[in-house]
Amino acid sequence: MNKDVHILFGLRIKELRLKAHISQEELSFRCGLSKNYISDVERGTRNISLKAISKLAYGLHVEIKDLFTFPK
Amino acid sequence: MNKDVHILFGLRIKELRLKAHISQEELSFRCGLSKNYISDVERGTRNISLKAISKLAYGLHVEIKDLFTFPK
Repeated sequence: MNKDVHILFGLRIKELRLKAHISQEELSFRCGLSKNYISDVERGTRNISLKAISKLAYGLHVEIKDLFTFPK
Repeated sequence: MNKDVHILFGLRIKELRLKAHISQEELSFRCGLSKNYISDVERGTRNISLKAISKLAYGLHVEIKDLFTFPK
C-alpha cells in the first residue's frame, strides 16, 4: 500500500458522492452521520468504523466493496 | 442489508483465513492484531476500524474490496 488507506477511501467517497450529484449535507442526511463526519472522512482524517462504512454504502446506493475500488 | 454487516464480514475473514490454511494466531502475527481481536472480528462482535480492516487485507494477501465479497 503506497498511499494511506484513509486518504484513498476519502477520495473514493467524494468521487461517488459527486457522481451521485449530492452534497455532503444530503449524504449526511441519508446516512445518519453528521456533515462534519462526512467532511472528515473525505479528507481522510477519520479512522472510520465498519458500521459507518456500511451507512455510507447505503447512502450512496452502492455495495460496500464498491467503496474500495481505488486507482492503481 | 438483511444480515448484520459485522457478521458477514467476520464470516468472510474466517473463510479467507481457512482458504489460506492459517490459524487465527498466524493471522494475528501477520497483521499485528491480537488473537483475541481476530477471534472477535470473526464472530462479528467488533466494530472494526478501517485501519484494522486494511491490516487484515495485508495479512490475508488480498485487496480490501475482496474482504467485502459477501454471499447474496
